[in-house]
Amino acid sequence: MLDTALQDYSHRRYNPLTGEWVLVSPHRAKRPWQGQEEETNTQSLPSYDKDCYLCSGNTRAGGKKNPDYQDVFVFENDFAALQNESPSFAIEEELFKVKSETGICKVICFTPDHSKSLANMPVYAIEKVIEVWQEEYQKLGALPEINYVQIFENKGAVMGCSNPHPHGQIWSQFHLPNEILKKDDNQRRYFSKHGTSLLEDYVILELEKRERIVFQNEHFVVLVPFWAIWPFETMIIPKKRQSSILEMSRNERIAYATCISVLTRAYDQLFNCSFPYSSGIHQAPTHNLDHTHWHWHMSFYPPLLRSATVKKFMVGYEMFGMPQRDITAETAATMLYELI
Amino acid sequence: MLDTALQDYSHRRYNPLTGEWVLVSPHRAKRPWQGQEEETNTQSLPSYDKDCYLCSGNTRAGGKKNPDYQDVFVFENDFAALQNESPSFAIEEELFKVKSETGICKVICFTPDHSKSLANMPVYAIEKVIEVWQEEYQKLGALPEINYVQIFENKGAVMGCSNPHPHGQIWSQFHLPNEILKKDDNQRRYFSKHGTSLLEDYVILELEKRERIVFQNEHFVVLVPFWAIWPFETMIIPKKRQSSILEMSRNERIAYATCISVLTRAYDQLFNCSFPYSSGIHQAPTHNLDHTHWHWHMSFYPPLLRSATVKKFMVGYEMFGMPQRDITAETAATMLYELI
Ligand SMILES: O=P(O)(O)O[C@H]1O[C@H](CO)[C@@H](O)[C@H](O)[C@H]1O
Ligand SMILES: O=P(O)(O)O[C@H]1O[C@H](CO)[C@@H](O)[C@H](O)[C@H]1O
Repeated sequence: MLDTALQDYSHRRYNPLTGEWVLVSPHRAKRPWQGQEEETNTQSLPSYDKDCYLCSGNTRAGGKKNPDYQDVFVFENDFAALQNESPSFAIEEELFKVKSETGICKVICFTPDHSKSLANMPVYAIEKVIEVWQEEYQKLGALPEINYVQIFENKGAVMGCSNPHPHGQIWSQFHLPNEILKKDDNQRRYFSKHGTSLLEDYVILELEKRERIVFQNEHFVVLVPFWAIWPFETMIIPKKRQSSILEMSRNERIAYATCISVLTRAYDQLFNCSFPYSSGIHQAPTHNLDHTHWHWHMSFYPPLLRSATVKKFMVGYEMFGMPQRDITAETAATMLYELI
Repeated sequence: MLDTALQDYSHRRYNPLTGEWVLVSPHRAKRPWQGQEEETNTQSLPSYDKDCYLCSGNTRAGGKKNPDYQDVFVFENDFAALQNESPSFAIEEELFKVKSETGICKVICFTPDHSKSLANMPVYAIEKVIEVWQEEYQKLGALPEINYVQIFENKGAVMGCSNPHPHGQIWSQFHLPNEILKKDDNQRRYFSKHGTSLLEDYVILELEKRERIVFQNEHFVVLVPFWAIWPFETMIIPKKRQSSILEMSRNERIAYATCISVLTRAYDQLFNCSFPYSSGIHQAPTHNLDHTHWHWHMSFYPPLLRSATVKKFMVGYEMFGMPQRDITAETAATMLYELI
């Protein structure tokens, strides 16, 4: 009964990492769509574009010239949202609270080949990207003025990505952002209650249930979380707790790169397009404190709902009330699983 | 010094209603835009469209026929995300928490005239819409199975609105959604600490500072909140605390309708287009408890950033870290103020 109820009737599911709820309305997947259609990205790109500010050897908007890089290339964002050298100030009034924020923003080109994406890069090339993520997390995290390093990628015009050249970003800063505060709190609480990591216990249960698993190998599992918000939201989770990506061995890095490769390929096949998403890694803050409650993970938040042109809008009710989804996590997981 | 700092350097501002932070990066307003451009909505619509399922007398997708309505028309959503008759169920496991949810979803046509929007409806017609909001809040709220009534509007294709016919929605349900839980909590805490309403105190301070006021009349103020997330986000706030829209007198209703009219007209002028947004009213839950800490307000979350075609994307960093904005609340308020 319960299993069918979850596929047939409206309900709320709880996200134990953030402490927030999502409204699931499975019966609503049938409603007709008369709204905006996105453009499909099926155009094939050249390997080099002389007008792309991320291609090897080209000059960027800020006037700086890229080197002739061969694999991964990192540089400081020319229009950084966070700056390292700015004065410190604060307002402490109860209704007007302000704190100055400093930080460092970087851009990472995944490959010089303008036409690629993670989905069509070989696993060894993805491994190189992961290595650079590790290096940057370590280097930025070693600075006293940085306590959090957010690695992320916006892919596709519909996700506000201003350039199709395969690239991601890193924004690092002193204060913990909202999402990290929530996950820090809830993971700490769980750990002090059970002495085990929330996500390690969760992965064990998911591997038993086998309803939301998309892919797994020795070290990682890829799944649609029980509390997913976006239609085809997924998580890549290390099976054993690690507080940050620094703890990965060489073998684990290959296993992780494999997960990224398998998942992004399945995504591209789902609606036959270069699948848009924002992805990001949530991991321990970098100041030298106790982070044993942290279990790092990577999430993908893709906006598409039922085709390459129809996306899910998180608007009105979602902005004022709570996130809402139509197709269930189980259906989404099955659809992705069948593409692998 | 502090005032200039807020206009020049990255900082975080605190939202006392939600307890969350927004990252403000004023210097970043200068970055060039090479990303997706939205389509502008400048097409003029007919007063009646035979294919519109919201026009008077037309048949809807579900097969039902609209009456020949003359002003405001409300009906139950044919593809409701919440249903009133569904079984009750729950899962209580720590990592798999589920609760069935019931509710009632309605659609409100603001006028039979397909070509209008709130911005070009007369104040008396907006007042009629407000009256229906009051009626529905009262009627739905009187049901034992409803404890929260979310009134909202998604306007424009970019906000997932599937039909240009001027309309809004009401989703009502038993459990309090995430956003309401936060605002309930923070308003209650403030009220028990000070014996006054958070927003009443806030409005007094804003009216002294006069940096973020867009418009005011005897009963209401329209402002860009200090902690605004969206580039041209605004709030309409009653000057005296009222826990819900039911407490408005006839005169207050006219004053409120005037604010909506003035604000939506300014929005349309800002980038010379039918300005897209999601708007919504946050107010007290409807079960008969003590809601004296609640101060109702209406917010507008418009996505446009710097023209009718360039919107702000809340993606990567915003999804994984926290909301981020470029132009400051003060700049946005000045731009809107000058259009009134
Ligand atoms: O109900 P509509 O207009 O079809 O749908 C729109 O508003 C809903 C409520 O905010 C959202 O859940 C949908 O994603 C959006 O497309
Ligand atoms: O940095 P980009 O790619 O120019 O900009 C994109 O990513 C940023 C970080 O998620 C967002 O703040 C911007 O709204 C988005 O357009």
